[in-house]
Amino acid sequence: MSSFTGVFPYLVSPIAPDGRVLEAELRRLVDHLIAAGVHGLTPLGSTGEFAYLDWTQRRRIVEIVVEQAARRVPVVAGVAATTTAEAVRQAQEFASVGADGILAILEAYFPVSEAGVIAYFTAVADATELPVVLYTNPNFQRSDLSLPAIETLSRHPRIGLIKDASTNTGRLLSILNRTEGRMQVFAASAHIPAAVMMIGGKGWMAGPACAIPRESVRLYELCRAGQWDAAMTLQRALWRVNELFAAHSLAACIKGALQIQGFGVGDPLPPQAPLSPEGRRAVEAALRLAAEALAAAPEA
Amino acid sequence: MSSFTGVFPYLVSPIAPDGRVLEAELRRLVDHLIAAGVHGLTPLGSTGEFAYLDWTQRRRIVEIVVEQAARRVPVVAGVAATTTAEAVRQAQEFASVGADGILAILEAYFPVSEAGVIAYFTAVADATELPVVLYTNPNFQRSDLSLPAIETLSRHPRIGLIKDASTNTGRLLSILNRTEGRMQVFAASAHIPAAVMMIGGKGWMAGPACAIPRESVRLYELCRAGQWDAAMTLQRALWRVNELFAAHSLAACIKGALQIQGFGVGDPLPPQAPLSPEGRRAVEAALRLAAEALAAAPEA
Amino acid sequence: MSSFTGVFPYLVSPIAPDGRVLEAELRRLVDHLIAAGVHGLTPLGSTGEFAYLDWTQRRRIVEIVVEQAARRVPVVAGVAATTTAEAVRQAQEFASVGADGILAILEAYFPVSEAGVIAYFTAVADATELPVVLYTNPNFQRSDLSLPAIETLSRHPRIGLIKDASTNTGRLLSILNRTEGRMQVFAASAHIPAAVMMIGGKGWMAGPACAIPRESVRLYELCRAGQWDAAMTLQRALWRVNELFAAHSLAACIKGALQIQGFGVGDPLPPQAPLSPEGRRAVEAALRLAAEALAAAPEA
Amino acid sequence: MSSFTGVFPYLVSPIAPDGRVLEAELRRLVDHLIAAGVHGLTPLGSTGEFAYLDWTQRRRIVEIVVEQAARRVPVVAGVAATTTAEAVRQAQEFASVGADGILAILEAYFPVSEAGVIAYFTAVADATELPVVLYTNPNFQRSDLSLPAIETLSRHPRIGLIKDASTNTGRLLSILNRTEGRMQVFAASAHIPAAVMMIGGKGWMAGPACAIPRESVRLYELCRAGQWDAAMTLQRALWRVNELFAAHSLAACIKGALQIQGFGVGDPLPPQAPLSPEGRRAVEAALRLAAEALAAAPEA
Repeated sequence: MSSFTGVFPYLVSPIAPDGRVLEAELRRLVDHLIAAGVHGLTPLGSTGEFAYLDWTQRRRIVEIVVEQAARRVPVVAGVAATTTAEAVRQAQEFASVGADGILAILEAYFPVSEAGVIAYFTAVADATELPVVLYTNPNFQRSDLSLPAIETLSRHPRIGLIKDASTNTGRLLSILNRTEGRMQVFAASAHIPAAVMMIGGKGWMAGPACAIPRESVRLYELCRAGQWDAAMTLQRALWRVNELFAAHSLAACIKGALQIQGFGVGDPLPPQAPLSPEGRRAVEAALRLAAEALAAAPEA
Repeated sequence: MSSFTGVFPYLVSPIAPDGRVLEAELRRLVDHLIAAGVHGLTPLGSTGEFAYLDWTQRRRIVEIVVEQAARRVPVVAGVAATTTAEAVRQAQEFASVGADGILAILEAYFPVSEAGVIAYFTAVADATELPVVLYTNPNFQRSDLSLPAIETLSRHPRIGLIKDASTNTGRLLSILNRTEGRMQVFAASAHIPAAVMMIGGKGWMAGPACAIPRESVRLYELCRAGQWDAAMTLQRALWRVNELFAAHSLAACIKGALQIQGFGVGDPLPPQAPLSPEGRRAVEAALRLAAEALAAAPEA
Repeated sequence: MSSFTGVFPYLVSPIAPDGRVLEAELRRLVDHLIAAGVHGLTPLGSTGEFAYLDWTQRRRIVEIVVEQAARRVPVVAGVAATTTAEAVRQAQEFASVGADGILAILEAYFPVSEAGVIAYFTAVADATELPVVLYTNPNFQRSDLSLPAIETLSRHPRIGLIKDASTNTGRLLSILNRTEGRMQVFAASAHIPAAVMMIGGKGWMAGPACAIPRESVRLYELCRAGQWDAAMTLQRALWRVNELFAAHSLAACIKGALQIQGFGVGDPLPPQAPLSPEGRRAVEAALRLAAEALAAAPEA
Repeated sequence: MSSFTGVFPYLVSPIAPDGRVLEAELRRLVDHLIAAGVHGLTPLGSTGEFAYLDWTQRRRIVEIVVEQAARRVPVVAGVAATTTAEAVRQAQEFASVGADGILAILEAYFPVSEAGVIAYFTAVADATELPVVLYTNPNFQRSDLSLPAIETLSRHPRIGLIKDASTNTGRLLSILNRTEGRMQVFAASAHIPAAVMMIGGKGWMAGPACAIPRESVRLYELCRAGQWDAAMTLQRALWRVNELFAAHSLAACIKGALQIQGFGVGDPLPPQAPLSPEGRRAVEAALRLAAEALAAAPEA
């Protein structure tokens, strides 16, 4: 069982218009996030535009992040495919590159049967020695993980974590109750991280933490210390970032927030639109609000 | 502004096969719930099958509940209509009968414009002197309340409470942030009550509290006292009731749970199905689990 | 088995702001439609705003339509309820008033089981000697009729017609194939009437026919005569009315179209909005286009 | 403007368990379909499992089909990508390989703006000299083509055909009316081909035609000849294949139907499930029914 816990930002994927990975900016971002205290890094999540990158780009991004993280924090790399064979191949390559864990995503065009879903995630977990985080996002994917499927998968020795990106926080409690300690949950950006910590969550894996890492880490520490009043005061201010993240395109929002902070991470890949001028102003205001709330928050 | 706070069970509507209200059982249920410590009563919510009752039945139920409650706790009666005129009429009748508040529900067959939604709820709030709780249930209704509509309505002097029956707990925090103290939130059965209390909720209005009132009151008190660890231990046990409530038909589940406890409240109105034998066994097990958790829980 | 066939307009429900039925206008409308050659009349469909009317209004509307039609064409009255008992009661009252058939609608707040759906429609068909048209509208209702349920219901001696208001024309062919002659289909406004006639339909029950009755009758006659090229030329022009009907609120669109033609049928009941000025201009243009196409169409 | 017209089967993609394209079977299938009289071939549609194949597999399939077709019928190859750059690259490669047209598919993970949708399809059409068929499938894709977007795209000199895979046949008439001759429509498997022909369609592009090519060609010819009664008799029998295609997984259904006919095209790529034994029996019965109907049908 993995000991992943804490704040794991979903990294954006900085790509030049000609398709090259913007290596220097990605390395700067990794250093910046580790300096801010994050507990791990997650390249190739939804925010990382995995669905818009080819395999050469995906592999290069994981290589760079692993190399730059240099074991300071664990790297959980996103595996995403429509076929079992391709997912197994990706997982094995990421293991050979040095990733510390796999975020396993099932893409689908046609609906997948429950047995097919279980077979896919089991094959990914069997493919390497790495711990696996299940990822389910019913908003953007053509499949979902039912509670019985999660319970079945929780019995695999390398599957002990799940990131459920629905907005349904009660489902996380159902997962915790049903798997009786075998499965830990991470909050997604659609959940209130402090509320998920309160019901027993282990942290969060989400795009907003890439834009406000220090604020996210402080919130996590306050929750861990049981300082719920201070946590909620900070949480209420930070929630604006999550709201913008949901209202605007995920990648556009976080890439825009990083550009505001001086990172040349580029725009989302077309035909996705970059952050609009109004969106940029709203993100700027949310970042200021977050910084003020951090300044006013106590140490945990 | 109303001072409604705490646990407000949605009452089932006990109806005989010939359509008469089972008055004696309803009076027993009211006394039972008040003795269990609930802070208010809510007839004619979803659990109360408002959508299956005619006006004569609805009015008689509110009369009985108001009379039997006898001012021991406030009664918030559900107004539900497709037309503004009918909603206003219902609100005025409930005020004349002695209700303490209105739970305002907009039924719709065709989609309603934002302006139409606002006009409807404003008319209900203008119709009487009673405080109004907005009720929105995107699963069962053909309309929803947008955040801008909620913000607009929060400026009405008699609209200061909302019960959002989506599963999206983050939306409650968005409502609290956006209305800056003008709108208070109640948890619905699809939310984790303890989590909603932690983010600033005032209590919950929900069907499950009709089946486990003493457990619900204890959970509320633990949350109010900031005893979050004890609250979450109790909450995890009680959550099973909410899961069953979602899995089975709402009215069938709560009517079944009350029958198990000796209340002759009858079955849901056909063509709704009564609780199945398997459902009954699951509810019995959940009630036992809840009682054990209550026995093990500390006083707040 | 009923012999209903042809164009059955859904009548709007002309209601004054104080709730009274505008009797004189409704009688004028009935005479106008019969003079235009329609084959039947259907009060209290979706276009008739059944979901916005109380029982007194509904009953009065059916009384007036039956009386004014005076057996010149059959009247198929809409029965709509959430409970079986109320639906049976409505059907019996409409039979006593003199209706020639029942359009049976199941309203639902909670999901209904397949057995519940079948029990409801069977009870309505058992309630009177009248032929029953099943009505299913997955866009506006919280229930749908599965193909197995339709097959089961088609074996009832008084259930032999269905109006499926989905946009899925292929489903109509599946119904025809599966019920092997026991169930006839009517087109709804979301289907292309000429295409439904071509695959074996018996006519259409729809709101637009209330606004363009003569055009609808001519289209029907051309289809019946197998003059498909002429039918399609007319159909392409008339389709604009159906598009507007879908784009604007149904009742608003048809009430607006009738106002343009000099019928004082009033607006939809609030909080529904009346037809917007742009909507009115679009409807005027569509009516002109329809009239021109009728003038250019051959006799069947 | 292209002159594509008639029956264009979506080809399955025969893939061995180790990922190789089963070249010999694919060549046999191409010859078989051309011998049956189909008017064109469409590799890499939904039925062709484009979403489950890597680029090497996709390119090899198009090469084989183009080579084997040897200009006897046109080959319209499916381009599908989430990014504009990748779609342009695919289109150019397929043009260089010798494809006669492009079936353009926009895959999406995040929602795409209308401007983004238009930019994507325009870039594909600008990429080569080949005619482009727009493909939209709201059931399986995270984007759709609005009527205004279709109208805009219809003004591109190489975009004059659309395959709309919704079940909404009325939408096809709206497209025809709105684009005033600039855009022709093909039926998808969810439409009744004979009905689409009657309203002005040019043919159909669909998976079922790969399983029943001779029946499909006869149906097309009867429609073209205006023999609507004979067409509908045949159509009613063939519709069973479309129903099974919708009820079972598309690729599983057609691959299973071809296996029954002696083609070793393999199963869908895991985790997709192969056709179940019950599915196989249902497909066998539908194929028999189709063959009998063909034998009974007149020549056009």
